[in-house]
Amino acid sequence: MNFSSKLIEQAVDAFASLPGIGRKTAVRLALHLVDLPKEHTEQFTGALKEMKDKIQTCTTCFNLSDEAACSICNDKSRNPELLCVVESIRDLMAIEHTGHFRGFYHVLGGIISPIEGIGPGDLNIDSLLNRVELGSFKEIIMAISPTIEGDTTIFFLSKQLATHGVSVSTISRGVAFGGELEYADGLTLGRSIASRIPYQVSQGA
Amino acid sequence: MNFSSKLIEQAVDAFASLPGIGRKTAVRLALHLVDLPKEHTEQFTGALKEMKDKIQTCTTCFNLSDEAACSICNDKSRNPELLCVVESIRDLMAIEHTGHFRGFYHVLGGIISPIEGIGPGDLNIDSLLNRVELGSFKEIIMAISPTIEGDTTIFFLSKQLATHGVSVSTISRGVAFGGELEYADGLTLGRSIASRIPYQVSQGA
Repeated sequence: MNFSSKLIEQAVDAFASLPGIGRKTAVRLALHLVDLPKEHTEQFTGALKEMKDKIQTCTTCFNLSDEAACSICNDKSRNPELLCVVESIRDLMAIEHTGHFRGFYHVLGGIISPIEGIGPGDLNIDSLLNRVELGSFKEIIMAISPTIEGDTTIFFLSKQLATHGVSVSTISRGVAFGGELEYADGLTLGRSIASRIPYQVSQGA
Repeated sequence: MNFSSKLIEQAVDAFASLPGIGRKTAVRLALHLVDLPKEHTEQFTGALKEMKDKIQTCTTCFNLSDEAACSICNDKSRNPELLCVVESIRDLMAIEHTGHFRGFYHVLGGIISPIEGIGPGDLNIDSLLNRVELGSFKEIIMAISPTIEGDTTIFFLSKQLATHGVSVSTISRGVAFGGELEYADGLTLGRSIASRIPYQVSQGA
């Protein structure tokens, strides 16, 4: 689009650099800020800068955190026998939002994908095995998207965990096959956590 | 949504305060910034702050501008006989984007709407009449959304302009009746500017 103002153009470019925001939406957002009092823009940019400056990764579960340990890991009221393994922080947030799970989490930071060149060494798997070894967990719930890569990752992890004396379960297939976990509605996702099933290595064979 | 981090929550709230951005999208945008280098967030927030700090309103046409006079009003290559009257800066941008118009603009800052309590005195109409009185304009094009309020505004302006020795035209009804001008596609909008028709007071009677 042809702007008569460089300042507007820069702001539109900034918004349009975000995922899922097209040029028309970016124009709308930039002009929205122009219309509002200056304090609003300062609050908006301040919140983003503060997040970016201060946000940390929890040293235990790899969740995003305001401190060295996240508020979930610090929560003494949670069930110390349940550990939920997720691909990403978005998936953790989606499950947490359902309110159906009161155990702890472990964020892998991805899933095994030979096509994208992501192997087990690129994921937070050693730290997971360490936690299981040292912790009080009795059940490890694999809340991983039911895709081919997700199933591969679950298979790999269940093999690794087999000698640790814990049971491994997966969330039930309420989430449509091939579907991305983070897009599932809260009810489906919550129920699929509640009705999780024991994971058997021979299951898919 | 239940966040384990106050910092994330503030950033999500900031994004969700923008028009058309829901909570899920806001989470996605906030986590997008977390994933990228710090420089990206600084560039993003910097562009928005700079726009908000420095943006001005053109004293002639009421377009947004980096200087006291906007780059369109300063453009000597434009046709000094054509003046296009628009409701908002968004509409100006949409017409400018079609590339079909090379005259000048005048932004009303709204349209006459008794229901919303917007009368002629609330709009940039005196300055429009001044420009027409003092300027070299021969044709005033009403590029105003074809709604009831839009038609009322065109009617009012054409009455005011009747004694100024200029012809008044409206953009052709390629834009669907009741449709908002800023959502029209570029081709339709461009053609409706090119095939504009003389405005007659008796037209709608």
